[in-house]
Amino acid sequence: MIIVMAKTATPDDITAVTDRLKADGFQVHISQGVERTIIGVIGERTEEVFRLGSMQAVEQVVPVRRPYKLVSRDFHPEDTVVRVGNVRFGGNRVVVIAGPCAVESRDQVMQAAEAISHMGVSVLRGGAYKPRTSPYSFQGMGLDGLKILAAAREKYGLMVVTEAVDHASLANVAEWADMVQIGARNMQNFELLKAVGQIGKPVLLKRGLSATIDEWLMAAEYVAAHGNPNIILCERGIRTYESKTRNTLDLSAIPVVKQLSHLPIVIDPSHSTGQWNWVAPMARAAVAAGADGLIIEAHPNPAEALSDGAQSLNLPHLAELVTSLAGIADAVGRSL
Amino acid sequence: MIIVMAKTATPDDITAVTDRLKADGFQVHISQGVERTIIGVIGERTEEVFRLGSMQAVEQVVPVRRPYKLVSRDFHPEDTVVRVGNVRFGGNRVVVIAGPCAVESRDQVMQAAEAISHMGVSVLRGGAYKPRTSPYSFQGMGLDGLKILAAAREKYGLMVVTEAVDHASLANVAEWADMVQIGARNMQNFELLKAVGQIGKPVLLKRGLSATIDEWLMAAEYVAAHGNPNIILCERGIRTYESKTRNTLDLSAIPVVKQLSHLPIVIDPSHSTGQWNWVAPMARAAVAAGADGLIIEAHPNPAEALSDGAQSLNLPHLAELVTSLAGIADAVGRSL
Amino acid sequence: MIIVMAKTATPDDITAVTDRLKADGFQVHISQGVERTIIGVIGERTEEVFRLGSMQAVEQVVPVRRPYKLVSRDFHPEDTVVRVGNVRFGGNRVVVIAGPCAVESRDQVMQAAEAISHMGVSVLRGGAYKPRTSPYSFQGMGLDGLKILAAAREKYGLMVVTEAVDHASLANVAEWADMVQIGARNMQNFELLKAVGQIGKPVLLKRGLSATIDEWLMAAEYVAAHGNPNIILCERGIRTYESKTRNTLDLSAIPVVKQLSHLPIVIDPSHSTGQWNWVAPMARAAVAAGADGLIIEAHPNPAEALSDGAQSLNLPHLAELVTSLAGIADAVGRSL
Amino acid sequence: MIIVMAKTATPDDITAVTDRLKADGFQVHISQGVERTIIGVIGERTEEVFRLGSMQAVEQVVPVRRPYKLVSRDFHPEDTVVRVGNVRFGGNRVVVIAGPCAVESRDQVMQAAEAISHMGVSVLRGGAYKPRTSPYSFQGMGLDGLKILAAAREKYGLMVVTEAVDHASLANVAEWADMVQIGARNMQNFELLKAVGQIGKPVLLKRGLSATIDEWLMAAEYVAAHGNPNIILCERGIRTYESKTRNTLDLSAIPVVKQLSHLPIVIDPSHSTGQWNWVAPMARAAVAAGADGLIIEAHPNPAEALSDGAQSLNLPHLAELVTSLAGIADAVGRSL
Repeated sequence: MIIVMAKTATPDDITAVTDRLKADGFQVHISQGVERTIIGVIGERTEEVFRLGSMQAVEQVVPVRRPYKLVSRDFHPEDTVVRVGNVRFGGNRVVVIAGPCAVESRDQVMQAAEAISHMGVSVLRGGAYKPRTSPYSFQGMGLDGLKILAAAREKYGLMVVTEAVDHASLANVAEWADMVQIGARNMQNFELLKAVGQIGKPVLLKRGLSATIDEWLMAAEYVAAHGNPNIILCERGIRTYESKTRNTLDLSAIPVVKQLSHLPIVIDPSHSTGQWNWVAPMARAAVAAGADGLIIEAHPNPAEALSDGAQSLNLPHLAELVTSLAGIADAVGRSL
Repeated sequence: MIIVMAKTATPDDITAVTDRLKADGFQVHISQGVERTIIGVIGERTEEVFRLGSMQAVEQVVPVRRPYKLVSRDFHPEDTVVRVGNVRFGGNRVVVIAGPCAVESRDQVMQAAEAISHMGVSVLRGGAYKPRTSPYSFQGMGLDGLKILAAAREKYGLMVVTEAVDHASLANVAEWADMVQIGARNMQNFELLKAVGQIGKPVLLKRGLSATIDEWLMAAEYVAAHGNPNIILCERGIRTYESKTRNTLDLSAIPVVKQLSHLPIVIDPSHSTGQWNWVAPMARAAVAAGADGLIIEAHPNPAEALSDGAQSLNLPHLAELVTSLAGIADAVGRSL
Repeated sequence: MIIVMAKTATPDDITAVTDRLKADGFQVHISQGVERTIIGVIGERTEEVFRLGSMQAVEQVVPVRRPYKLVSRDFHPEDTVVRVGNVRFGGNRVVVIAGPCAVESRDQVMQAAEAISHMGVSVLRGGAYKPRTSPYSFQGMGLDGLKILAAAREKYGLMVVTEAVDHASLANVAEWADMVQIGARNMQNFELLKAVGQIGKPVLLKRGLSATIDEWLMAAEYVAAHGNPNIILCERGIRTYESKTRNTLDLSAIPVVKQLSHLPIVIDPSHSTGQWNWVAPMARAAVAAGADGLIIEAHPNPAEALSDGAQSLNLPHLAELVTSLAGIADAVGRSL
Repeated sequence: MIIVMAKTATPDDITAVTDRLKADGFQVHISQGVERTIIGVIGERTEEVFRLGSMQAVEQVVPVRRPYKLVSRDFHPEDTVVRVGNVRFGGNRVVVIAGPCAVESRDQVMQAAEAISHMGVSVLRGGAYKPRTSPYSFQGMGLDGLKILAAAREKYGLMVVTEAVDHASLANVAEWADMVQIGARNMQNFELLKAVGQIGKPVLLKRGLSATIDEWLMAAEYVAAHGNPNIILCERGIRTYESKTRNTLDLSAIPVVKQLSHLPIVIDPSHSTGQWNWVAPMARAAVAAGADGLIIEAHPNPAEALSDGAQSLNLPHLAELVTSLAGIADAVGRSL
């Protein structure tokens, strides 16, 4: 940590700060600059230092170390590979997850699952518990939806990922699915993150709508610190001023996350663009930028979808997209 | 709802859309523009219309009606007054809520409560369950903290507001406090909102860090639709690119919310600015803009605070601020 | 400046950096932290330090000193008062500037000028050169518009402020008006800023739509460094994700600017909200937060305005607003 | 255009609006909804309709048609190919532009030009007029810099693009370079855009730091409407809350622009990321998403660069990147 003293700070002010830091067990280094004094603070704890920001003579407290540990590449230099059944995220192969936004019926899921199982897609997605902006919107089929997903897994040999929204749904999802999704709106639902840390299934952790990369990694740190190291990060678009797209897909997050963390990262080009015909170019871009996987909304009949129809690919468009991804993967030294 | 057809839409495309809408029970009005056809859609349901956005011939689906009902001023033109014990939010008096960010000890809370009870502050705040960005930060005293707050209420005749972060903490907060706070990070934790709809205590609903005003009112609609009409909205700063302040306090939300909704609105100048010496001017601005109340962090000794010390007022500064607010309230025809 | 070395930096890497800094004439202080080495760099120049960020062993370069000097409160601790004729910005009185968005005709300006001269408004605004998003929109009356403003000044004893958009219009504005406005879109038009630095008239410098406070003060530094110290800053709303208002008025900029700089600050509640009935509450909030003035759009007949009609007050509403401001000014120890 | 009347609008209010529209020569269609009346307005002009937003009975004015014409795909369905000497932007080949941020010396430019001429890069970039945030930073070599670029063009057969910042520099750039760059900060410097419309050289129009795609296309419309149809759009990152990257590269703008406009689009991965080791993945992603070209900062010795050293590739890294792009271009059916 670095403490920048105000220009008006007196020698007594500086001594007050350094005495307090020493009393709290920190080592200090003082640099007397042209206009301001800077105090380098050496030690593990950060909160004791941050609260010195309330002193009038302190202008700024600047953190130097990253706030996360277990998920940091400093701590674990090698890439982590997360296994979901026989599927590996973070290795040489780029994994495609696809399926409808919401589980609506057995027929709909089976039709989607059959189609994707022939395309090289290895994981089926579909929401049984749906966080919806309006209380009057379809809220998902719940446990019945999970059972439909499980049936599709049995029949078509796909892994299943689906969202949990609270403790009760988490218990069900952990029982019936292969991977638990934590949605963007719950990225800082810390009680849910602690609970996810205690289950034995891998987690797909979506980035919050306006989460910084540091906050996102701190959310992953919650899961890891509570016992679950099997975390896959998912960028799904951030909120900006631009309104042509539903959100702004932050593909730069891929190299940034790869530098800061050892965890795999997956991209959701469907929620970010919000429009089906922009999904394919962004999916290809994601693979070119080094993503470990994609999660794509596809529906047997988008115009009948109970949620997010406008951003869902139909199944022939999905097949076409998956085919086109192989060449990109190859060009960056990976395979599909 | 309005459907804007693509410039390339054929008469058959238009018929396909209108036939489908009529089959779903909507009335339609067609306007043939210079370049594009516009279809006015009359009916209550919106999802059936939105998913037509997946059709190639449809350029855009534009909503016309507001998505919220119970919290809308259209539905309830008079201002709502929410009672928290003997305190009324939304009437002529501007209510001040103050107290420490986190409950840290009995002494700290009692000292703060005693001081504020002499200042004209009628509600005590203090977090017992703390959502913290880092899993390694102080997470709050939990039930013990609630009991300390309740003791302060008894002794100093203050109402108590404190945050709930999940179902378990909600049950405790509803038992021990007078008003439940839902924090910014949980504004779209819909399962928690549903549960808050079922308790008998008023709720202080903070705006999410990047929530639009419509999303915030939809979150309030969740609470209302599940049975609890006693909602006070709280603006606490939104996330923008500006980093000098912790967040950007959106005071324009006051007149906007007053136009769209009948609910009272309270401003948090502490979390938004993140710096104690900017709290007073923003608190005064909030009252001038028509806020129904303020929620301010104050601590007997900010430099020792376990969280958010840099943004907490000390008690003499709080007293000075509250005094200065009376003149502003008077200038806008209200009282403190 | 502070250089944070990468965790993987070797002693040789550190020596390479410090040798280079010393060769460039900087003093260095090394702090060896738990995980990283921090180098404090003492000296005036910053670019030589920033470009070390391209070295693999350097993780981050953190500036400590503010990048502006002449406009900084460090450099000039007392408030600056800028005189525009007999009007003083930055003293005890809060100044109101009002008038139409664009000069449209002699009648329109004279009607507005007469009305505002009876309200205690001392400065007339009105655009003769209009930067418009569309090339097909009304672009302003140019020199003829300036002459109309000058005529209104003569007749009603008002000071005149109007915008310059390039070198040619600047020469005209400097000749005919009392204060030159630099609009949000030109805040980083550095060639124009340099030219403004060389004229003898005060400047009203609007904050760019997405400018940080530091960038805004750097734009003011351009003007000051080129010779013109008579600068009034104007906050007019920043671009955020919220779309209910045209922009988000950042009133927190008032205390922040007052802390960092000695220059006066004026608030534009018209462009920021974009809606006439939200102007009055935000104008009152600005005065309560410590603004030195307001700039408000008002039109004799908003529904006929050639630009920005929806955000213009009519003249009776303006009169009512100005009256209400006196009480707020009084409550914060100032006068109108 | 669509006018949404307030819920409280009376039949007289509606008649007042429709009478006025008819008097202004518009056709109107009225749709009586469940709660609100909607008026479809048919006609070319938009400002007359927008200003009705100032009437109390009007809730909202919603535009339907795009505000741009000449640059719109509606107007010109085929892709435009812009020729810069023998280089074609917008055809099957993906064009790479590379070179230093600023022209610093003849040696530096010649060294860069020689290297890139062997890599398949066909256009040299380098700033002679530099818009800098600080008045104390290096402002560019001006005309001498242009002459150095022209010498490099002669010697190595490269096309040259460089930035103009006002009328005077524009005249010089148009004389000495092959393509004029308009920087992000000048995207809404409308006087400069008008002047660019009158020169005979193609223009590379960077997106403003917080410009919407519509505003960017309107800036292009300025250039086109003033006579210059040879416009290449350049996305270079937008301002968001995320601070790990210098800006957030909005690659979704590629498919969006391709849908709305017929103009070519080029991506700048250097300014957007601000860090040299994140440039390559984003450059690859851009090509995969369908970009028509790239503009990349490269410097013979980044650690000595007078500006933007941290984001510049050295020449071997650039060569490696260009090689890797060929496979991506091939995978999307294009060539380098």
